[in-house]
Amino acid sequence: MSNLKEIVISKLNERGVTIHDMADIVYKLQKKYNSEIKYIDCFEAIDKILSKREVIHTILTGINIDELVEKRKLDNEINDIILNDESLYGVDEILALGIVNIYGSIALTNFGYLDKIKPSIIGKLDKIGKKGNHCHTFLDDIVSAIIASGCSKIAHKKTIEF
Amino acid sequence: MSNLKEIVISKLNERGVTIHDMADIVYKLQKKYNSEIKYIDCFEAIDKILSKREVIHTILTGINIDELVEKRKLDNEINDIILNDESLYGVDEILALGIVNIYGSIALTNFGYLDKIKPSIIGKLDKIGKKGNHCHTFLDDIVSAIIASGCSKIAHKKTIEF
Amino acid sequence: MSNLKEIVISKLNERGVTIHDMADIVYKLQKKYNSEIKYIDCFEAIDKILSKREVIHTILTGINIDELVEKRKLDNEINDIILNDESLYGVDEILALGIVNIYGSIALTNFGYLDKIKPSIIGKLDKIGKKGNHCHTFLDDIVSAIIASGCSKIAHKKTIEF
Amino acid sequence: MSNLKEIVISKLNERGVTIHDMADIVYKLQKKYNSEIKYIDCFEAIDKILSKREVIHTILTGINIDELVEKRKLDNEINDIILNDESLYGVDEILALGIVNIYGSIALTNFGYLDKIKPSIIGKLDKIGKKGNHCHTFLDDIVSAIIASGCSKIAHKKTIEF
Repeated sequence: MSNLKEIVISKLNERGVTIHDMADIVYKLQKKYNSEIKYIDCFEAIDKILSKREVIHTILTGINIDELVEKRKLDNEINDIILNDESLYGVDEILALGIVNIYGSIALTNFGYLDKIKPSIIGKLDKIGKKGNHCHTFLDDIVSAIIASGCSKIAHKKTIEF
Repeated sequence: MSNLKEIVISKLNERGVTIHDMADIVYKLQKKYNSEIKYIDCFEAIDKILSKREVIHTILTGINIDELVEKRKLDNEINDIILNDESLYGVDEILALGIVNIYGSIALTNFGYLDKIKPSIIGKLDKIGKKGNHCHTFLDDIVSAIIASGCSKIAHKKTIEF
Repeated sequence: MSNLKEIVISKLNERGVTIHDMADIVYKLQKKYNSEIKYIDCFEAIDKILSKREVIHTILTGINIDELVEKRKLDNEINDIILNDESLYGVDEILALGIVNIYGSIALTNFGYLDKIKPSIIGKLDKIGKKGNHCHTFLDDIVSAIIASGCSKIAHKKTIEF
Repeated sequence: MSNLKEIVISKLNERGVTIHDMADIVYKLQKKYNSEIKYIDCFEAIDKILSKREVIHTILTGINIDELVEKRKLDNEINDIILNDESLYGVDEILALGIVNIYGSIALTNFGYLDKIKPSIIGKLDKIGKKGNHCHTFLDDIVSAIIASGCSKIAHKKTIEF
């Protein structure tokens, strides 16, 4: 599994996303609720989430779809729908639930919130994904889901292991 | 079922929530995406959502829990957790999924967003629920879920029936 | 949308699945609860489900992944995991939730049940998918989800529109 | 939290459910896939699940609803619907998702399966719940959810911590 984890982290890097990008948003969001949280805890939370098998599977599947859409390898109709990130295409959010569900209700509500306000890396991915042949339809939801799960982990910290 | 629908609407009224309160938020949120939407369509969307059996069951169950918590009818430990709307109590968001899931991904992300920013009636319910013996732990999530579902219905309108 | 519906039905046919295959299982499962149900109603339930945008998007996305896996177009690690339909790969079930969630709790429990017992077409797809280069990892869950949703529609029939 | 865990275990006992009852079913179901699993691991899996905050909250909430329904403390219409465990009442399955979601896809499909075939303790709860004034509408789904989550934990064992 450690091998798959390395693969997933470098895959995220290739597509423009670092653990730091995600930990940053967790830190900013959770600091509001608890001024004592440390950035390193947010970094470790994201790192731990990226060790989970279901998370790894979801990330690799989602990014591969984005890449195949960029190469126009899907049937025309669905390739266009995904490439244009049509607002009524909801499979990307559903896939992200595979990550969010594992981390409970706080992850779920943060996911919806991040998907709407699109801060920093999420907004950047969304913007680039709308240009030319780039496709981030799945990636931006996956990144939102990882960050939302990080928020949930931090919120549960100091109480019981989550 | 029409009888149950009347019951659910008057139950919501008793607890301080009208169809107008919910339609208002749908209208404000969806106008950003489509300037041509009409308030009456938002009202009808909420009205139609309140006709669905699964929605009715969820509302009646959730409000009854809130009321029984106010009367201290649950076991002490869980009664306190719900009355204080502890941030790590997540059963209220799960229950609301019984509504949100039916209306797809747009409902899901709007639900998370509304749960965070708590506009108008949602914020009002949340605030009153934190006072004295009032409990709106389930109601504010249910109302968010109904509004989020209304947003989804409006977003899907003019395309296919949803 | 009607165009997309035709595309989705012929895509299912190409991959070995007809509306009849799915309506058959709905009929057999629901007859136990209500001896008066008619096959034609089960057929129409499946047909109606195949008209829903979110269902269409999910089917086209899932089948395209299966096909691209057969052509080895994904990164090696994830291509192997999906091709072998590894028991700990759960993204296929998550994707199917995009269909199941819309049809409520009865769809959800029937989905889990069908996924375990794999009757008729579901078992057939599963078996062929394990041979040589065939991949039905997403398709068998999608077909289970459509059938489970059909069961839910039939169970709700005669009460309110669902 | 350890205090709440003791409360939840004795609450389950009071309502007729032991850790053994649940571990038994996990053992029988998972032995089919891996003949080397040990009963003690199934017991420990259930025990660990019962330590999770979201699981504890769900159990206490669900059992309290059942008990208040037995005492006719809810509004008449919804009290009758829950007491009769009407097949179209789906809030009990939704609540159980608060447990199942955390443990991923294997938990989800096992939940649907158990909800249909109702082995041992689940069937017993269902049967007693249909008699006289007893209500197990929420409890039988909660117990199914805990067992399904135990199956998922055992299936993931030896690979990565879940």
